[in-house]
Amino acid sequence: MENKYIIIPERDLGVHEECGIIGIYSKEEKSLARDTYLGLFALQHRGQESAGIALSMPGRRISYYKNMGLVHEVFTEENLQLLPDSKIAIGHTRYSTTGSSNAINAQPVVFFGKHGRSALAHNGNIVNTGEIKETLLKKGHMFQSSTDSEVIATLINYLSDISMEEGIIQACKMLNGAFSLVIIAEDKLIAIRDKHGIRPLILGKRGEDIVIASESCALDSIDATPIRDLEPGEILSIGADGMKSILYEKEQKKLCVFEYVYLARSDSVMDGTSVYESRLNCGKKLAELYKIDADIVAGVPDSAIVSARGYSMVSGIPQIDALSKNRYVGRTFIQPDQLQRENSVKIKLNAFKRNIDGKRLILIDDSIVRGTTSKKIISLLRASGAKEVHMLLASPMVKFPCYLGVDMDTKEQLIAGYKTKDEICKTIGADSLNYFPLEELVKSAGGGPFCTGCFDGNYGVPINTRAGKFELE
Amino acid sequence: MENKYIIIPERDLGVHEECGIIGIYSKEEKSLARDTYLGLFALQHRGQESAGIALSMPGRRISYYKNMGLVHEVFTEENLQLLPDSKIAIGHTRYSTTGSSNAINAQPVVFFGKHGRSALAHNGNIVNTGEIKETLLKKGHMFQSSTDSEVIATLINYLSDISMEEGIIQACKMLNGAFSLVIIAEDKLIAIRDKHGIRPLILGKRGEDIVIASESCALDSIDATPIRDLEPGEILSIGADGMKSILYEKEQKKLCVFEYVYLARSDSVMDGTSVYESRLNCGKKLAELYKIDADIVAGVPDSAIVSARGYSMVSGIPQIDALSKNRYVGRTFIQPDQLQRENSVKIKLNAFKRNIDGKRLILIDDSIVRGTTSKKIISLLRASGAKEVHMLLASPMVKFPCYLGVDMDTKEQLIAGYKTKDEICKTIGADSLNYFPLEELVKSAGGGPFCTGCFDGNYGVPINTRAGKFELE
Amino acid sequence: MENKYIIIPERDLGVHEECGIIGIYSKEEKSLARDTYLGLFALQHRGQESAGIALSMPGRRISYYKNMGLVHEVFTEENLQLLPDSKIAIGHTRYSTTGSSNAINAQPVVFFGKHGRSALAHNGNIVNTGEIKETLLKKGHMFQSSTDSEVIATLINYLSDISMEEGIIQACKMLNGAFSLVIIAEDKLIAIRDKHGIRPLILGKRGEDIVIASESCALDSIDATPIRDLEPGEILSIGADGMKSILYEKEQKKLCVFEYVYLARSDSVMDGTSVYESRLNCGKKLAELYKIDADIVAGVPDSAIVSARGYSMVSGIPQIDALSKNRYVGRTFIQPDQLQRENSVKIKLNAFKRNIDGKRLILIDDSIVRGTTSKKIISLLRASGAKEVHMLLASPMVKFPCYLGVDMDTKEQLIAGYKTKDEICKTIGADSLNYFPLEELVKSAGGGPFCTGCFDGNYGVPINTRAGKFELE
Amino acid sequence: MENKYIIIPERDLGVHEECGIIGIYSKEEKSLARDTYLGLFALQHRGQESAGIALSMPGRRISYYKNMGLVHEVFTEENLQLLPDSKIAIGHTRYSTTGSSNAINAQPVVFFGKHGRSALAHNGNIVNTGEIKETLLKKGHMFQSSTDSEVIATLINYLSDISMEEGIIQACKMLNGAFSLVIIAEDKLIAIRDKHGIRPLILGKRGEDIVIASESCALDSIDATPIRDLEPGEILSIGADGMKSILYEKEQKKLCVFEYVYLARSDSVMDGTSVYESRLNCGKKLAELYKIDADIVAGVPDSAIVSARGYSMVSGIPQIDALSKNRYVGRTFIQPDQLQRENSVKIKLNAFKRNIDGKRLILIDDSIVRGTTSKKIISLLRASGAKEVHMLLASPMVKFPCYLGVDMDTKEQLIAGYKTKDEICKTIGADSLNYFPLEELVKSAGGGPFCTGCFDGNYGVPINTRAGKFELE
Repeated sequence: MENKYIIIPERDLGVHEECGIIGIYSKEEKSLARDTYLGLFALQHRGQESAGIALSMPGRRISYYKNMGLVHEVFTEENLQLLPDSKIAIGHTRYSTTGSSNAINAQPVVFFGKHGRSALAHNGNIVNTGEIKETLLKKGHMFQSSTDSEVIATLINYLSDISMEEGIIQACKMLNGAFSLVIIAEDKLIAIRDKHGIRPLILGKRGEDIVIASESCALDSIDATPIRDLEPGEILSIGADGMKSILYEKEQKKLCVFEYVYLARSDSVMDGTSVYESRLNCGKKLAELYKIDADIVAGVPDSAIVSARGYSMVSGIPQIDALSKNRYVGRTFIQPDQLQRENSVKIKLNAFKRNIDGKRLILIDDSIVRGTTSKKIISLLRASGAKEVHMLLASPMVKFPCYLGVDMDTKEQLIAGYKTKDEICKTIGADSLNYFPLEELVKSAGGGPFCTGCFDGNYGVPINTRAGKFELE
Repeated sequence: MENKYIIIPERDLGVHEECGIIGIYSKEEKSLARDTYLGLFALQHRGQESAGIALSMPGRRISYYKNMGLVHEVFTEENLQLLPDSKIAIGHTRYSTTGSSNAINAQPVVFFGKHGRSALAHNGNIVNTGEIKETLLKKGHMFQSSTDSEVIATLINYLSDISMEEGIIQACKMLNGAFSLVIIAEDKLIAIRDKHGIRPLILGKRGEDIVIASESCALDSIDATPIRDLEPGEILSIGADGMKSILYEKEQKKLCVFEYVYLARSDSVMDGTSVYESRLNCGKKLAELYKIDADIVAGVPDSAIVSARGYSMVSGIPQIDALSKNRYVGRTFIQPDQLQRENSVKIKLNAFKRNIDGKRLILIDDSIVRGTTSKKIISLLRASGAKEVHMLLASPMVKFPCYLGVDMDTKEQLIAGYKTKDEICKTIGADSLNYFPLEELVKSAGGGPFCTGCFDGNYGVPINTRAGKFELE
Repeated sequence: MENKYIIIPERDLGVHEECGIIGIYSKEEKSLARDTYLGLFALQHRGQESAGIALSMPGRRISYYKNMGLVHEVFTEENLQLLPDSKIAIGHTRYSTTGSSNAINAQPVVFFGKHGRSALAHNGNIVNTGEIKETLLKKGHMFQSSTDSEVIATLINYLSDISMEEGIIQACKMLNGAFSLVIIAEDKLIAIRDKHGIRPLILGKRGEDIVIASESCALDSIDATPIRDLEPGEILSIGADGMKSILYEKEQKKLCVFEYVYLARSDSVMDGTSVYESRLNCGKKLAELYKIDADIVAGVPDSAIVSARGYSMVSGIPQIDALSKNRYVGRTFIQPDQLQRENSVKIKLNAFKRNIDGKRLILIDDSIVRGTTSKKIISLLRASGAKEVHMLLASPMVKFPCYLGVDMDTKEQLIAGYKTKDEICKTIGADSLNYFPLEELVKSAGGGPFCTGCFDGNYGVPINTRAGKFELE
Repeated sequence: MENKYIIIPERDLGVHEECGIIGIYSKEEKSLARDTYLGLFALQHRGQESAGIALSMPGRRISYYKNMGLVHEVFTEENLQLLPDSKIAIGHTRYSTTGSSNAINAQPVVFFGKHGRSALAHNGNIVNTGEIKETLLKKGHMFQSSTDSEVIATLINYLSDISMEEGIIQACKMLNGAFSLVIIAEDKLIAIRDKHGIRPLILGKRGEDIVIASESCALDSIDATPIRDLEPGEILSIGADGMKSILYEKEQKKLCVFEYVYLARSDSVMDGTSVYESRLNCGKKLAELYKIDADIVAGVPDSAIVSARGYSMVSGIPQIDALSKNRYVGRTFIQPDQLQRENSVKIKLNAFKRNIDGKRLILIDDSIVRGTTSKKIISLLRASGAKEVHMLLASPMVKFPCYLGVDMDTKEQLIAGYKTKDEICKTIGADSLNYFPLEELVKSAGGGPFCTGCFDGNYGVPINTRAGKFELE
């Protein structure tokens, strides 16, 4: 029987953003929980495992709720009603993994320390967690979860003898890696972007309210107007006496370029560049670079549809959909046949047979991670009558794992880690295969510089920091 | 504060398909529940309120499970495992309304009658239900739900003295309106399309299995190959001795043209015409008919994206997205602000401000029902910088309610029922407004003839059948 | 290892009441749903599978909610709030079986028939359902559940040409068996007790409200005062113009005597006799009949504790508990060890070792059905040091199944159906075994006459009614 | 309308045990989760808010699951299957409060510290938590919950430089108050009872397995045989090389005497005294002390039933039930009428009117806390016809709050804290009122010495330890 329909196991997708964060400061107590909820809902694509909201209360107390599940599953009308009015709110949404269903890992982390109750939400990945943890363990600290966030909170509290702001500055200097943070501390909302600016963080306002979020689409969702992106190494402290900005340390900005390729929502504008435009430009440039004699050009939904449009604009080859995505695919899905197919499927694609039959096809996808999905898609297209399938990628070869907050596979699992372009082409069964050059990707994303570690191994930060310069005295 | 973000209450969408159905016949007992589940999952867009599966068992018994919810919510792995192997399966998915949360209305209807246990799943709307019910009530029958399906089942059973097939033929002759049915009756799978073929129904096979479904995308989902659409008035009876076709009555085919405009999934092929192609052709023709001096053309996601592409192909005006749809929007959604906004919101759209700002825009949508959504969208686009918004519809003016299985608003609520084109243009705030002529719609959908009742009042069947010619003696 | 702790599978208990019912009539619309809920909660011991409430609405409509689960699981605050104010309410709770988890069998049955919408709740068992169903099937009726209640509703509607009251009278005359009914019909609350009064039904009032319930404890729960039990064959019709009583047919009352032994709550008063007193008297009489040289007397909790007290009062032998029951035992319980123990356990008993050790013990239980539980209990007591265990039963030998609404095992499973008293004594491992004579049970329960079918085969009604005298013309 | 039926808000009950704990050590890996589950189920009466199980894994890892809910709600078959085989297991069940529904407070506390992963479960209350917390905060530690258990774990880890055993010994010396602990630490199961033995803890074995539990009924539930109670100040360390006992500090044993009055399950044997016997003896002694001319004696279910039996034995006055308790009362209960009655009801009692009417009644209850419940009960009894109600308590006047692990009300809320016996008698509406003298309670519970702080203010430990002798250097 022909394979006319494919089911893609979640892990094949290979790439997951870790988290989305949001923080809101208001001069008056009001129902910030609902605004935070809406903002998290707009950031849902950055994490589907858990969601949480923490609110400042008078007397440095914190009211919070967090649990496993999608934003609208965690926060029912009943739950939201239990959350009080507040002046400061932070929210967090976390990506979906299999098995780690312990609510203990959900964020924000709420803790009672030297300066009363605080709460912290984190997007990114700290590369020297091990060392910090070891040092803190020696100091007699203990940890109840396996998250970076708890380590960051412990470190900040440890260093906060004078004030939390001081502790935060000291902690930021010790943390290596990618981190965007929102913190409720001492009646202030504090927002931080690491010194390389690897993860995005944007500042906006709505009337007199200040809003901080991972992406501008979250600002849009609550009618807030973007002001500017946080600077690398910037600590924004927002309180009753206004907003104060500190640069705890500044290095060249190295925003993760994969945000433009796949992670961010296309209606976000990140460090000045529209994600949508970067994807459209990518398609246009691909058309200049790779002139292919074909009948139609199609993108793999959803992320590569825009690039295919750009390709069509420049090449004149009509953009016709080749694949349909079932928009009801959720997180839980019954195994259709336990014997023949694979577990834990996530996405269902069907071929537009009438669009494909007898056609020579250019297929654009955002990236190839393991290659298994591409292989299945091309096999499906051929079974649906495609005469030729020319594969174009909107990104370079993914050869290196990410250590800075994106859950990619290990190097052994990355097909470009151990195969040449021609070998990959053969493996996935394409007639031709071409990647988007890194320098062009950088250009289409606004010029950079960027962290391009997953493509060329040049991470924004030194990854091996084992050579212990970290000391807490 | 500007309205930069809109939330659209579900009822504003105005149009709902009633149901999706599927039936499978296998010569050997096997796990048809899982196949039926996958088929229903592919038909989820036709109904999100409830889902159910019924299976034939030896001795004319029926095993079944149905409940409120989406297909993957109703059928957990646990539920599916409880359903036994079977030779015949039927499945049903029903659209979402507010309030009627009683599982009693879920389908398939399973009943014990003259010929043992049977099960029936229905898509459509019977226009003479009232009369039939009245007559059956006089005969002493009672009804436990408010569905047409229970009335059809009661009527079939009443008329089945000789055999269920005979009862089904007699019942079909009495039923006026739109109905596609799959029935488990006397160890057979029986599939029926009304004499006008108003609702779609397609026949396929997978090896030796016979599969019947509302749309071809459901066949694709279980690797079944489409054979042909059922004829108007055809009763297909599939049993151990093969497949038998009867025409209980034949009239001119009058498939609902709105299936192409909005209801069907674009990867389905219906009565020989690709839904995708019909939408693309519509866009191309719109470009011929309405030459507009604009910078970009955009479709309202998801259904009008393809039409916008067609417009771009012919006009040369670049297709650039104007609106982003949050793909996590589910059925339940917290009220963001109980005081200011509206209940029961369903869809969230954000504007691509950078794509729009300063631009003259052509916006294509599939149809205008109440006009409230269009008004909000145009207001959002203007707030995002659009200089001009020229609205094009992929369908004619919706002036009449549907009585044949689509849940549109009443005539009083249809904006084209009481306003002229120019008035509507003004109401929704567009710079210009143009509709797709009915004759062009018919052409782009393959030529017809179609039921075009919602556009011109010419329904496939006489709607007012009150003048009681119905008699059961 | 000694067996010091036992787990008793639910089915070993052998006896289940079918249902509890309640009906309330108020002159003014008010929140009867909450009162009905409280009444059902007091009747929870009569059925744990499903619960439902139906309410009359203006225009002969019915609002209802029913589902699988305990009363407080089915009716959350949210569900109750959705139920409107009303003048008439009926409620039903159904006993727990394994597997039949289809909500379609939950009651009340709500149906639309000759006189608009009606609702019906039933406690009992009709012995000629088969015939009635057959006849109705021939008339062209169909059935969607496997309950007697749907058959009764169909029959009543069939016979209701003139009025529902007339239909109810005719239907009652045709129904053989045990039935207590509450019905919402034509703006009236109608309550019926079968001509033998096999199942209980009591009338009460609260201010101007009329309340009907299976047991007086349900009246107590809503501050209603008992007036009297319904007469055998009585049809009470309560409407805007007051209460009307009809005797559709009267025969000698034959209330199920097992209600006093086990089924009813001890704080109920049934047909004038306190259930508590009947159990206490039973214990006293047992002490007169069976003088045993023992150190302590103990009852198996909960039902036999009162009988043990009676025994102690007369004999002077101190009542000391021998068994402790974990009051958190619910309906779902994990299998403690899938290999060694039994599935679907329900009750957990622990021995009071310090009370038992070295003692000669009289143990009183309400009845022996299969004997497996008694065997386990005696083994537990011996392992805990009991020197002698003399078993006394608060009822005669259970030799015959019940056909009238109690779910006992079949005759083959009843240990007294195939073993003598001495054989049973040996099987369960007791030092002596004695039963309560039937004539004494009858006396202690107020004199009767009663249905004593499960003890002597003399049922209140002729059980084999197959010889088809039933005709509907 | 007479108040014939009462609903008692949970808080009126006034007394709550904090927790139940269990630990199991096995030489071989096996399914200890199921045994722990059964043990927790037997300890359910000690806490109904949350439940959790932690299991040791190779490499000093811990596998665990904990959540809000009753034991059988938290642990479904699915959850239990996910828990692996293990050599060491600990379990915890926590009492129910309103509002604090955050799973973060559920136990066991699982933490990663100097010696890898550990887990800790705690029953009791530390009176110098504040100081310890303050000192640890100064050292830079932070806290994520509001439980004593997290403070204990943090302290132990802080002091564990050499080994966890050493840290535990040091920590125990610093902790003031009541604590029984089970800990998984460095491949050992460690069980601890504070130096006064305020909370119970018993050691048992099952074959080669060692079992530690709060009460002997938990040992019974898994067929383990009790060996002995832990000594005050004893630290039992159970590992691959056997069991080692250390006395970290020993003072006079001061077991909480309220365990016998109300908290413990009556089938438990605690520090050598049967809880059942102590309650029976109490009733007998009450009969000697208070000779009352009455017709019947009744206990308030469940805890005082046994005392009433003892009274009857000595006095000759028959024990007849006056109150029936609905055994389906669960944790969630709909508000029957939002206007008239109170929220969050927990227990439902009905009066046996026929037993009471015209009678002079002796009513025994375990204790009076606020007095509100007693008042409602007596009012119900009078409304049911009681001519006289003479109240006897199975304990002395509760005048002081508990600081050692029992959640009683504050002194202001304790009726005996501000009223005399005669005033209380008048307030609750009794004809006479008498308490059980403290010296008699002590005798009936085995002689003591006991902590009797709630009765006479003499707590087992100094309560005001604010005068900061606690130092961590």
